[in-house]
Amino acid sequence: MNKKGLSILMRTKMRPNNDPSKLSSFSPSLSKQNGINQMMTDPPRNQRSTDDSRSNFSASGNHYERNFDIVKDSMGLAISLNKTESLDVVLDDFSQGYFSLSNENRKKLVIVLAKEYDLDRIQVRELLKQYLGLELRSGDEGELSNVDDENMFSAFYRIERNLRQALKPTYNVLFERLNNYTGGLKFLSLLRADILSFLGEENIASLRALDSCLKEKLSTWLSPAVLELHQITWDDSASLLEKIVTYEAVHPISNLLDLKRRLGVGRRCFGYFHPAIPGEPLIFIEVALLKNVAQTIQEVLLDVPPIPEHEAACALFYSISSTQPGLAGINLGKFLIKRMITLVKRDMPQISTFATLSPIPGFMQWLLSKLASQSVIAEVDNMEQPTGGSGSAFQENLLEPDEERMLLNSAPETCAGKNGMEVMLNLLTSENYEWTSSAELLSALKPPLMRLCARYLLQEKKRGKALDSVANFHLQNGAMVERLNWMADRSERGLRQSGGIMVNYVYRVECIEQYAQSYFSAGHIHASSDIRHYIRAHKEPEETTIA
Amino acid sequence: MNKKGLSILMRTKMRPNNDPSKLSSFSPSLSKQNGINQMMTDPPRNQRSTDDSRSNFSASGNHYERNFDIVKDSMGLAISLNKTESLDVVLDDFSQGYFSLSNENRKKLVIVLAKEYDLDRIQVRELLKQYLGLELRSGDEGELSNVDDENMFSAFYRIERNLRQALKPTYNVLFERLNNYTGGLKFLSLLRADILSFLGEENIASLRALDSCLKEKLSTWLSPAVLELHQITWDDSASLLEKIVTYEAVHPISNLLDLKRRLGVGRRCFGYFHPAIPGEPLIFIEVALLKNVAQTIQEVLLDVPPIPEHEAACALFYSISSTQPGLAGINLGKFLIKRMITLVKRDMPQISTFATLSPIPGFMQWLLSKLASQSVIAEVDNMEQPTGGSGSAFQENLLEPDEERMLLNSAPETCAGKNGMEVMLNLLTSENYEWTSSAELLSALKPPLMRLCARYLLQEKKRGKALDSVANFHLQNGAMVERLNWMADRSERGLRQSGGIMVNYVYRVECIEQYAQSYFSAGHIHASSDIRHYIRAHKEPEETTIA
Repeated sequence: MNKKGLSILMRTKMRPNNDPSKLSSFSPSLSKQNGINQMMTDPPRNQRSTDDSRSNFSASGNHYERNFDIVKDSMGLAISLNKTESLDVVLDDFSQGYFSLSNENRKKLVIVLAKEYDLDRIQVRELLKQYLGLELRSGDEGELSNVDDENMFSAFYRIERNLRQALKPTYNVLFERLNNYTGGLKFLSLLRADILSFLGEENIASLRALDSCLKEKLSTWLSPAVLELHQITWDDSASLLEKIVTYEAVHPISNLLDLKRRLGVGRRCFGYFHPAIPGEPLIFIEVALLKNVAQTIQEVLLDVPPIPEHEAACALFYSISSTQPGLAGINLGKFLIKRMITLVKRDMPQISTFATLSPIPGFMQWLLSKLASQSVIAEVDNMEQPTGGSGSAFQENLLEPDEERMLLNSAPETCAGKNGMEVMLNLLTSENYEWTSSAELLSALKPPLMRLCARYLLQEKKRGKALDSVANFHLQNGAMVERLNWMADRSERGLRQSGGIMVNYVYRVECIEQYAQSYFSAGHIHASSDIRHYIRAHKEPEETTIA
Repeated sequence: MNKKGLSILMRTKMRPNNDPSKLSSFSPSLSKQNGINQMMTDPPRNQRSTDDSRSNFSASGNHYERNFDIVKDSMGLAISLNKTESLDVVLDDFSQGYFSLSNENRKKLVIVLAKEYDLDRIQVRELLKQYLGLELRSGDEGELSNVDDENMFSAFYRIERNLRQALKPTYNVLFERLNNYTGGLKFLSLLRADILSFLGEENIASLRALDSCLKEKLSTWLSPAVLELHQITWDDSASLLEKIVTYEAVHPISNLLDLKRRLGVGRRCFGYFHPAIPGEPLIFIEVALLKNVAQTIQEVLLDVPPIPEHEAACALFYSISSTQPGLAGINLGKFLIKRMITLVKRDMPQISTFATLSPIPGFMQWLLSKLASQSVIAEVDNMEQPTGGSGSAFQENLLEPDEERMLLNSAPETCAGKNGMEVMLNLLTSENYEWTSSAELLSALKPPLMRLCARYLLQEKKRGKALDSVANFHLQNGAMVERLNWMADRSERGLRQSGGIMVNYVYRVECIEQYAQSYFSAGHIHASSDIRHYIRAHKEPEETTIA
């Protein structure tokens, strides 16, 4: 650490507090795609589009917005390029021009790119007709000579190749050229962050197609084979450490001392780096070396001094942050955890447990909307069938009879309601999380919250995968759900996201591959018997498998 | 350098001499694609497929060939993968199994991959029909509402996306999985080297399609953004230096002293590394720091002691070797030279000239076949038109009248012929390059050889690009043709490939981009006025542009 440390410290202190409104800067459907980016809920967007982005290009010092048409022309040139121009100059010009534009003009430009540099549908149709004109003979229709066979396949391969080519949108060229250009990969990541935010404002089909093309390209270029895992220490450059402070999204770093402790004894910080984006990890992960798997985040963040490292038996991943909003949906973490476990094990063979202490970012959102809609359904059903009865097929009491009784008994008047679910909804949405200061309410809420949280993590799915983005991230990496921890994160964010509950995912070194594979292919979620118990007691038949 | 040096030395001495028969190990059409791989004419194929390849995987120590069907099944599993298997184990099993197979069985397996894991043409046809069913409305046919527009495009984008997916052959999956697997990129490079050699034996359409798919994938994964340029020095590991000795293809390294000099004072060696293939450069380039651009390779290889580095004004690239035959046709060198120039300039700002001393590997082959066919044409024409006359349209006297006279006068009886071209052919193909030991023959051959060499480099093209592979490599990198050097490489290979002529390409730092671009887009070859002079004197109209 050099004297720039002070400047980090000052900037750290001036950093705006977590603003919940920024949570919604990505549309839910986008942020759901990837756990790691869901975790990174606080991308410093404003700073990014002014300072950061410029610093990656030989900025001309011109902070005025350039004329839209000029930037549009330079984009066209970067794609078509006539022979007198040098590609580097053109790309430099375009990228600087792009950054000079206002948000509105950027959006306009990106839409031009999506619509005017699409594919040539006339040509595609021509090729399709040629292809359909080819006769597809199977071996059943009599013997073919090898020569006929060769000729037939040659024709297929040729047109298929041409078709593949024709189906590539023209803007592909721009992406590929930028990727070969110094700083271009970073530019593309910033460009995609913009595209995602435009899509959040307006869901335009051509923008979606542009995004999907760019996303696929970025996934290929960011293949794990290329990413390098390095330990980040106090000896790293101030500019790198500053990025850790800026991007730490799960448990914000409050000051220089906090940062120093997270890199010191009993702690590790690892970053995933790409050679084309030097000095800036794409993801970083913070690890605490502990005696046992921690149950609350406070004991991890505040245990001073940490235990001697040789006494540690558990490596706890307590924070994973992604730094590039433009890489949302690209699973960069895929091999990160496996590689990191290998690194930690090499240095400290006495570590036997690898676990996380993770947020459950979608739990409250799911639960509150479930409670609200069930309250409405219950009300409607009661009006339609005033005599009672089985009610609508959609009706479901989320609460067990015991739970409902306790809630109705302990709720204060301000949170009264027609049934247990309404009471629960009122309690959970009460101002300043009042329920957390009452021992009675805490003990009334704990059973249903823990049970429903287990159900949310293990049974609520979207396209066959866990609905919770962080769960999905760890499960696809080969973890299992180990333990729910009550009141494990009493921070405002912790209470808002998951009612203060946190979860330990555990990585069993010998099962990582197998668990990842069975989750990937069949959506199978491995969980400890403790967790399964919450659900089984309520509903699940006895024969459910226990991992 | 550690004590392993001795073992390098021993292996270096035992290394088989350059065997000219190995030149043809790649079919001409393949090796023409890329200069750098043409330069690398001596891939140590035998060694590769036994030792090297194994060392990249946790070899089981089993050197027996596995059963073909078992390896075939493990390939199938690596593609389809059921949920109980771990992907790493399957890929490990498949790659080891592949290497255990005989060459014949590898070929059989690769053909199975190409034919049985192709694409689903029934599905492609289904999608094509759906696509053709969509109505393509242009803006001309009346005003469309934005909503209609969106719906129409949504449908197009959806089917186009599905089509792109369906047009990907199934074996794509195998390539992608291998790329994510430790050592997998190296495996894919070795696999492609095999495919290229099978294609050399038999040009099968499905194998071509397989190769083209793998080549495209490799190009993407080996994007220059990912490659890292490092200087290779005497302090590098023996295993890396051993690879330099093994793969140096242009001017073989004869012993340890030779290697040490090439990494010592007045010399530089740079390698292009990929993070997934550590400890082994994909390309390396050797540089000599000189007072002037060298005219013969002997003065570069044998100048002992070299000049003090601060007196150098020229960085001469005298050898570029590629180490991976499986990366043929992939232009890895694209940014190598530009980056290297930047590195050299940073350390030694006094260097003002960046040039090569390059072989002209295709000159003699082109000239001899030209001379042979012209001799035949001349003979046939003489029989058809015994009275003489303009002759066939294909007839062309490659020699100037002066040149022909000198050749006829100086040729010994053993090389007699009906005309100058036949004499020249006989001289050039005489045993042991006899012509090089006669001052008279040298002076008779020099004018036509230099002139025809200039014509070969500047005017003989294939698909609009220089026919000579090394010329094509440097021109696409932005060089210009500066000077021809008579008797610059008197080695057996030098005489066989280019009659001993070598060429200096020069990189003008300020013109690299522009030259590369105009060569790329219009096939324009920039050349010095000296070189142009050879051609203009003979044929070219006066108004030819001189760069």
